[in-house]
Amino acid sequence: MTTETHFQRELEDLKGSLLKMATLVEEMLRDAIQALVMRDSDLAKLAMEKERQINIMENSIDEMCLKLLALRQPMATDLRFITSSMKIITDLERMGDQAVNICERVFSLNQEPQLKPYLDIPRMAEITQSMVKDVLDAFVNRNSKLARSVCERDDLVDSLNDQVFRELLTYMISDPKTITRSVHLILVCRCLERIADHATNIAEDVIFMVDALVIKHRADLNEKEAGGTS
Amino acid sequence: MTTETHFQRELEDLKGSLLKMATLVEEMLRDAIQALVMRDSDLAKLAMEKERQINIMENSIDEMCLKLLALRQPMATDLRFITSSMKIITDLERMGDQAVNICERVFSLNQEPQLKPYLDIPRMAEITQSMVKDVLDAFVNRNSKLARSVCERDDLVDSLNDQVFRELLTYMISDPKTITRSVHLILVCRCLERIADHATNIAEDVIFMVDALVIKHRADLNEKEAGGTS
Repeated sequence: MTTETHFQRELEDLKGSLLKMATLVEEMLRDAIQALVMRDSDLAKLAMEKERQINIMENSIDEMCLKLLALRQPMATDLRFITSSMKIITDLERMGDQAVNICERVFSLNQEPQLKPYLDIPRMAEITQSMVKDVLDAFVNRNSKLARSVCERDDLVDSLNDQVFRELLTYMISDPKTITRSVHLILVCRCLERIADHATNIAEDVIFMVDALVIKHRADLNEKEAGGTS
Repeated sequence: MTTETHFQRELEDLKGSLLKMATLVEEMLRDAIQALVMRDSDLAKLAMEKERQINIMENSIDEMCLKLLALRQPMATDLRFITSSMKIITDLERMGDQAVNICERVFSLNQEPQLKPYLDIPRMAEITQSMVKDVLDAFVNRNSKLARSVCERDDLVDSLNDQVFRELLTYMISDPKTITRSVHLILVCRCLERIADHATNIAEDVIFMVDALVIKHRADLNEKEAGGTS
């Protein structure tokens, strides 16, 4: 097998690992919200245990990237892909931290009766999960259209967040007994909003990366058409 | 000038730029908190304007790092230093985002009378600022002791955050008219806590980087003493 083919296989491995790490984060988030909705502290505990696995994956992918940089000395697109991967795993790990924060709120919330049936929060979580999934797909497949749709969904999450925030303020003002629970729920929403922000940050990088590529390709093409040599 | 000396000078430039970007973030945070304490919406607006500058710096340092990776093909310690720099600028940019969030809360808070004199929040902000400053110094000077002290300060920020949180809950419960202001202040604290978390994440990377270096040096030394050839 040639060095080039080896390198391509290593890049495919890297993509596979990134997608696997993103799936773990998605699952963790899904379980944390399920734990919130079902008032299930055991599930919250299980979700929190995924954090260790996520940290281990972060370290191993980081090392994978460093090795690729050192041994393959990639240029241009591949170089950008690898350094972006190193940033993305940091984002994924931070998303995991936020999911842990949600689980911790679940424990506190389960010490009191449920404030109200949750509708908007699971909706926010669902959108956020789809953002995490799609932004990683957009990254590994260099799909800037999909990345743009992730950015658009961030606005949706923000407006749901504002809506829940205002609603919970009303609850608190009309009945001070709901204050502690309401504040916990506001902070759960903040965690979801932060996760969506991380996904949006990645999406912006993908758009930048792909568009720079498109512009570069066009420039190369023009140069060829003009009879340039490089 | 030799290639080696050139490269060393480029690394020094990179360090200088990182410190400059960190100083901007520190200043932004200082102004945001000053704006909060003095109820000065104009200062909050000025602080928010620094965000653009921070974003520009992030892009230019990112490009600087990519060029170093592509043209100098650094190995081992230098490679790790450059990839870590690329992660750190993302952290610094996110800290800037959090400072913007604080400024936005200031506008809302200034629409009502001050809830109470702020004591713990400026204290939290002061510690957080020192963490941002010191963690960048620790990084560029590979000082793991200083990095450890940053991690310790994070516990202090967390416990101040818990204290303010509990205090504000008491305010809200005893007087529902304070709810909106209290929630804004809780969210200001969350922003500070997030900034401290970013600094701690960098500090942990510095400790990992420096300790791995120490372990590697020891191994090299042992190998030499045993008569190894590499």
